[in-house]
Amino acid sequence: MKKYEKELDYSYTLGIFPTIELINNAPGLVIKIILSNDISDIKYKIIDFCKNNNIEYVYDDKFISKVSEKENCYVIGIFKKENNKITRGNHVVLVNPSNMGNVGTIIRTMVGFNYKDLVIITPAVDMFNPKLIRSSMGAIFNINFELFSSFEEYRLKYKNQNIYTFMLDGKQSISNVIKKEPYSLVFGNESSGLDNSYIKYNSVVIPHNNKIDSLNLTIAIGIALYEFTR
Amino acid sequence: MKKYEKELDYSYTLGIFPTIELINNAPGLVIKIILSNDISDIKYKIIDFCKNNNIEYVYDDKFISKVSEKENCYVIGIFKKENNKITRGNHVVLVNPSNMGNVGTIIRTMVGFNYKDLVIITPAVDMFNPKLIRSSMGAIFNINFELFSSFEEYRLKYKNQNIYTFMLDGKQSISNVIKKEPYSLVFGNESSGLDNSYIKYNSVVIPHNNKIDSLNLTIAIGIALYEFTR
Repeated sequence: MKKYEKELDYSYTLGIFPTIELINNAPGLVIKIILSNDISDIKYKIIDFCKNNNIEYVYDDKFISKVSEKENCYVIGIFKKENNKITRGNHVVLVNPSNMGNVGTIIRTMVGFNYKDLVIITPAVDMFNPKLIRSSMGAIFNINFELFSSFEEYRLKYKNQNIYTFMLDGKQSISNVIKKEPYSLVFGNESSGLDNSYIKYNSVVIPHNNKIDSLNLTIAIGIALYEFTR
Repeated sequence: MKKYEKELDYSYTLGIFPTIELINNAPGLVIKIILSNDISDIKYKIIDFCKNNNIEYVYDDKFISKVSEKENCYVIGIFKKENNKITRGNHVVLVNPSNMGNVGTIIRTMVGFNYKDLVIITPAVDMFNPKLIRSSMGAIFNINFELFSSFEEYRLKYKNQNIYTFMLDGKQSISNVIKKEPYSLVFGNESSGLDNSYIKYNSVVIPHNNKIDSLNLTIAIGIALYEFTR
């Protein structure tokens, strides 16, 4: 076992919270739980979780300090990189997301608003990177996701989706848009947004004044998921 | 001139974007602009800005590498730590915010939705820290802010505000709330939220399911500012 690398077929949950989400929502993926000897009361909860789910656990402080890279990490879950494909409901689509913290926050927001299916158009962040998992607070184990190498490839597979593209020059204001299910809410990269080829869909703008270039991506998605589930 | 410290009576804008916002919105605060010799085309724009506003600029790569702590910083603005007090309009109130990146993102979102007045209840982040200024992308020079050592102190000074407190157990859903101006939208700390003493005001919840503990603070504020300005 070693520090995380993209090429590995397993990854890590760093910390109590994402590890509990892992065990609760995807027990079948867990390879092993690593505990620190410094772990206190919460230990018994984690150990109960492991026992109830027939999951192996060991104490290994050296491993934890090597893998976590941060102080205050008392438990690590090692898990197989596997995930469920998306279903034919409403989707959130991220085109080329590049910031792991953002994607984690977006996943957590999706779960809060009952979205289960995330589409990632590559190139994009590594969805199994421990940093992304930590910033999702383990919410990633509550969603399905699927990677496509282009938006067209995604469209071919899911032909019946109503496509809403969020753009600064979107043609309809989000408050007035007619929501038709099943839908896909499509968002561009943090700095470049969606290019002009996306304007041909139901393009949507979240109105703001021109004193800022754009809303932060995670804020825009939070508003969109809130508005589409009102 | 040295690395930023809270005790200094000046601070820095790191990078082109916040420096341009500084010069555009608060030229009277600028002490000096520092340019890197590696700065390219954008140089002339910055230099024109300086000339038009009678602002001193010098080339000093050593200073930039010392202060910026990051690669790819080609310009720094040095400015006096002064800010305008808030006015008697609608306010955003942050109780004990502890994450500079979050506060910067919140300020940028406020500017986008036409909010000008930010109240900070201390203890809180240092509002002039260069990291906060950078994450606001310079939007901090577009708002007024005022610090209070308690919420009661703020209430005494601004008695006519209608207070809306955002809490997980808020009594009204944000979609149904009646908005009465002038109002104050009050948000708690990133991890602890607002304590029970805030439930006596118009307490508001942004409904989400129980699979997540809470929405991220910046997401919650984004949704609130969007909803209150619809």
